[in-house]
Amino acid sequence: MNVTAARKPSPPVRRPIGVFDSGVGGLTVVRQLRRLLPGEDIVYLGDTARVPYGTKSPPTIVRFACEDARFLLAQRVKAIVVACNTASALALDVLEQKFDLPVFGVIGPGAQAAVRRTRNHRIGVIATSSTIRSGAYERAIRHADPAAKVTARACPLLVPLVEEGWLRHPVTDAVLREYLAPVLARGVDTLVLGCTHYPLLKPAIRRVTGAGVTLIDSAESCAAAVRERLGELHLLNPATRKGTIQPFVTDEPGRFRELSRRFLRDAIRPPVHIDLQV
Amino acid sequence: MNVTAARKPSPPVRRPIGVFDSGVGGLTVVRQLRRLLPGEDIVYLGDTARVPYGTKSPPTIVRFACEDARFLLAQRVKAIVVACNTASALALDVLEQKFDLPVFGVIGPGAQAAVRRTRNHRIGVIATSSTIRSGAYERAIRHADPAAKVTARACPLLVPLVEEGWLRHPVTDAVLREYLAPVLARGVDTLVLGCTHYPLLKPAIRRVTGAGVTLIDSAESCAAAVRERLGELHLLNPATRKGTIQPFVTDEPGRFRELSRRFLRDAIRPPVHIDLQV
Repeated sequence: MNVTAARKPSPPVRRPIGVFDSGVGGLTVVRQLRRLLPGEDIVYLGDTARVPYGTKSPPTIVRFACEDARFLLAQRVKAIVVACNTASALALDVLEQKFDLPVFGVIGPGAQAAVRRTRNHRIGVIATSSTIRSGAYERAIRHADPAAKVTARACPLLVPLVEEGWLRHPVTDAVLREYLAPVLARGVDTLVLGCTHYPLLKPAIRRVTGAGVTLIDSAESCAAAVRERLGELHLLNPATRKGTIQPFVTDEPGRFRELSRRFLRDAIRPPVHIDLQV
Repeated sequence: MNVTAARKPSPPVRRPIGVFDSGVGGLTVVRQLRRLLPGEDIVYLGDTARVPYGTKSPPTIVRFACEDARFLLAQRVKAIVVACNTASALALDVLEQKFDLPVFGVIGPGAQAAVRRTRNHRIGVIATSSTIRSGAYERAIRHADPAAKVTARACPLLVPLVEEGWLRHPVTDAVLREYLAPVLARGVDTLVLGCTHYPLLKPAIRRVTGAGVTLIDSAESCAAAVRERLGELHLLNPATRKGTIQPFVTDEPGRFRELSRRFLRDAIRPPVHIDLQV
């Protein structure tokens, strides 16, 4: 009997939520999930051997995202959160078609939050080159508000600046001033931080935009969407104990462990090294 | 007979030189090979799906480098040039042991050139984080000049700045001033540009160092070493026509084609997309 009991699969509500990102940035989404859904177990995959996705081509990003999702499915997750703006922009549709479980991205929730907050219908979006080129934010924002005027800007230097730790640094402020000047010139009152690294730059971005521009953190909006939808599907874990976070990485764990503190500020199990090309 | 002739493998001297890099940066080495050995055909592999290598761990870099070299061998190259400082630092020994053909890196030639040029035995090295952490330049420089004092500095923002095209930009100058200040404070008279992207920053670097510091371009030194060694091995192509450059890339060719102009300034065939994980 015990054997049978041990073999019985855990009921879906008890299963972990799977989260993947190209690297460590998706931990900003984990941090928000943690805040809203503290009882959920989380399995995190950071594809650190192939990071970043944001400078690569659509077919390559779709292939990587499918491999990431397949790994999480093998961990018996009840839902998948694509905690990477680039993969959300380019691979969400494919993942939804391919896999039979709830799949969440960061683009839709971020776009909807921006539309709820803007008063003048002028919305700015900053993200990686691939996310901006995909046009996914513009489409999602205009879908929610056909009157919206969207100004989008690729900011490829911001991820390296965050990873270098230059969060309060005159160079970072100068880079932000250059990137944001054409966006601010269009009179936006709302700015979507369309990359999981950017929430760490919120104070620096606010120094450049001033207080009159509302910053939308896609990670926050995404976590709220996950809570709402899993609630509707009766998939929320009723556990009252604090959930665990188990990270897996495709490169060696050292650098991930080092950076994860900056992004998560929460207890996390030691990362396990895996190889997706098996 | 014609069939036999067609089947006969081309003699080694006629075979191409294989060059690989994590991305497009290795084209600075191709440019120097081209200058010194215009008759050679070159097969270039840019692992653009997994670029950059410089932030990744040693075992992952060794695995990637072996896959890159195996692909070039299948193209029947007569020698392999590791036109990536990170892979040269971490994988050259493994490649030399594993494969039975001449393998060249950029570290040794760069280190030797620095030792020949310095007068005060104080040498600076700037490179990616992984190259610096490997200590490969320090070892190679001290091997050639046990009296040398080496000051090394990881500069992770320089590759993104080059790829953003900010070659003449106040932000780039500010970043260089910050990175180079502790190196210049040690009184170096020679500075090794230990990353294939950095030659594009030569004018900006010279603005910060002043004319008193000799800049060593590893790409130049590497090409000279290839010419010398292939000459000794009687492997130089006697052809008088201009050789071809055939690039292969692991991500879509679009961005490579765009960036390659900046790095090579020479005619190059259209890049062919391949998948190393077959």
